[in-house]
Amino acid sequence: MGKAKGDEVLWVRDMDHGIRKLGPDEVLERLKALKAPYHEGYLAMYSSWYGGIVTDPALMVVPLDDHLVHRGDGIFEAFKCIHGNLYGLERHLDRLERSAAGLHLSLPFERAAITRIVKATVRAAGVRDAMVRLFASRGPGGFSTNPYECPAPQLYVVCCRFLSTPAARYERGVTLKSSHVPIKIAYLASMKSCNYLPNVLMKKEAEDAGVDFTVSIDEDGFLGEGSTENVGIITRTGELLVPRFDRVLRGTTVTRVMELAAGLVEKGELARVGEADISRGQAYEAPEIIMFGTSFDILPVVRFDDRPIGGGKPGPWATRLLELLRTDMAGCEAMLTPIED
Amino acid sequence: MGKAKGDEVLWVRDMDHGIRKLGPDEVLERLKALKAPYHEGYLAMYSSWYGGIVTDPALMVVPLDDHLVHRGDGIFEAFKCIHGNLYGLERHLDRLERSAAGLHLSLPFERAAITRIVKATVRAAGVRDAMVRLFASRGPGGFSTNPYECPAPQLYVVCCRFLSTPAARYERGVTLKSSHVPIKIAYLASMKSCNYLPNVLMKKEAEDAGVDFTVSIDEDGFLGEGSTENVGIITRTGELLVPRFDRVLRGTTVTRVMELAAGLVEKGELARVGEADISRGQAYEAPEIIMFGTSFDILPVVRFDDRPIGGGKPGPWATRLLELLRTDMAGCEAMLTPIED
Repeated sequence: MGKAKGDEVLWVRDMDHGIRKLGPDEVLERLKALKAPYHEGYLAMYSSWYGGIVTDPALMVVPLDDHLVHRGDGIFEAFKCIHGNLYGLERHLDRLERSAAGLHLSLPFERAAITRIVKATVRAAGVRDAMVRLFASRGPGGFSTNPYECPAPQLYVVCCRFLSTPAARYERGVTLKSSHVPIKIAYLASMKSCNYLPNVLMKKEAEDAGVDFTVSIDEDGFLGEGSTENVGIITRTGELLVPRFDRVLRGTTVTRVMELAAGLVEKGELARVGEADISRGQAYEAPEIIMFGTSFDILPVVRFDDRPIGGGKPGPWATRLLELLRTDMAGCEAMLTPIED
Repeated sequence: MGKAKGDEVLWVRDMDHGIRKLGPDEVLERLKALKAPYHEGYLAMYSSWYGGIVTDPALMVVPLDDHLVHRGDGIFEAFKCIHGNLYGLERHLDRLERSAAGLHLSLPFERAAITRIVKATVRAAGVRDAMVRLFASRGPGGFSTNPYECPAPQLYVVCCRFLSTPAARYERGVTLKSSHVPIKIAYLASMKSCNYLPNVLMKKEAEDAGVDFTVSIDEDGFLGEGSTENVGIITRTGELLVPRFDRVLRGTTVTRVMELAAGLVEKGELARVGEADISRGQAYEAPEIIMFGTSFDILPVVRFDDRPIGGGKPGPWATRLLELLRTDMAGCEAMLTPIED
């Protein structure tokens, strides 16, 4: 059935018998037999197209004619389940609704139903900690660009094993590089759509350069965003500044951190928290550069464009903000949605 | 299993039992039971993931974790099979290779194998006339933006019933409108990738405005391209001009027409064939505006931004060029690849 590595069939491309017709049962048999090492992390998937939840990774499939597949005509959100609580679910659903409006996409279900589906999918996964990804698509209906050929939008929710970020990355810090991938046009940057090729190319760029992250640079030389991360700096005068959200996606992590850090401004620990035009030069000189993202929360940057940041060691604010965020994750009821009803 | 319309289950969203776990056989049973009216046009699909061809539309599915699905990280081509011959296949495969290079995507098979797969898929469809769509994807492997998490790219080929364009559209002409969707950044415009949201929004814009097509306008006010069409004009001095291919996709139809029309320049029938900056004003004044596309070939524009073009009637050049192209399709052996080996 394909190229085998040990006992595991990694992919299917046996040209000898690969072009003949397959019957439905044969397809199911082949899918069931197909095991990839990364499947181990896929715990459960809800599909509105199936009308239910599957736990077999091989059956986590979507129709080819869903415009999500061939046009990127869909939106997504990714959020964590921590000890049985979905963190920031409401905010992710707020953004989902904003992205949907940007695309003129009707969500397939009401918000309460989406919440029920997400909870049920995580419960079906049988874990308390997970990464949940939700996709709302234009739906199947044909292969043109015309969204009106799709009778009904679809919802797919996949619950994956949560992979925690190695401790060394927090302790030793991460590296960052300016991206050469052109920054997105504003209207595409503000939606979390499945048109993510610029983000793909930025991630590839980071991997190829041997750094952890790259950051987009706008036409005026100001910092933008990472492939799927926000960036911020701590200035010498004690400000927490992030690039303006008119050209970058409003990240849920950075937004929450800015809210929490506002309390530190009141206490006089920070001078200011806000959006700003941040030049590369300003970032090079900053005592701290910090990355914000759903999977790792907060990471300190110790090198940017091969220049040491903060003496090449993680600074105190990355740690302080991470503690603040982790405390929020552990105990802020308004931010937590239990997976049990 | 879902919302039923007559005997046909159109989509699945029965919330009463829609969130429970489904076993593999139950999924197959549900998929097999699912019939949508548009499925009638889906004749055959090759999947490298299956390692074969399916003819049941319900089984034309792809893995959710293929980065094609959640990032638009893939490329495509669409071409016709006319009376058992694939028209312009080699040129479409040339462009596929160029798109792949732009994305740093390895094609899953060599060109000869892709050709064999395409031919076999059309043969399995059991028709002589068809629209074939080919997708090359980054492949399954996870849900991040990182292309390196995908062990192997995949190929999906779908063969659909060919829907011919109604004769009235050629005879009466079509309508065109300037788009408000921002023109694509050059590097994304030059690849036929599955990041096609701007194209989706342009098609939606046309539908909403009650016109047949919209055309993008660049920052300097020059004409770009349609949602999935190229545009060109005939000038008063007898030139066939098309927007420069640095900001628009190099369409296979318009490219072939330009080659064929070069013969008319030699004969003195046309003054020139070439790329140019074409302002809206220039297009408004043009005796003819012409659309070029794989599905309809050539269509005359009779209204652009609510102004009549060529007196509001199709001009002679649209007809002349269409005849030239149809002759090429019928008999130019270099452009035809028979589906039989």
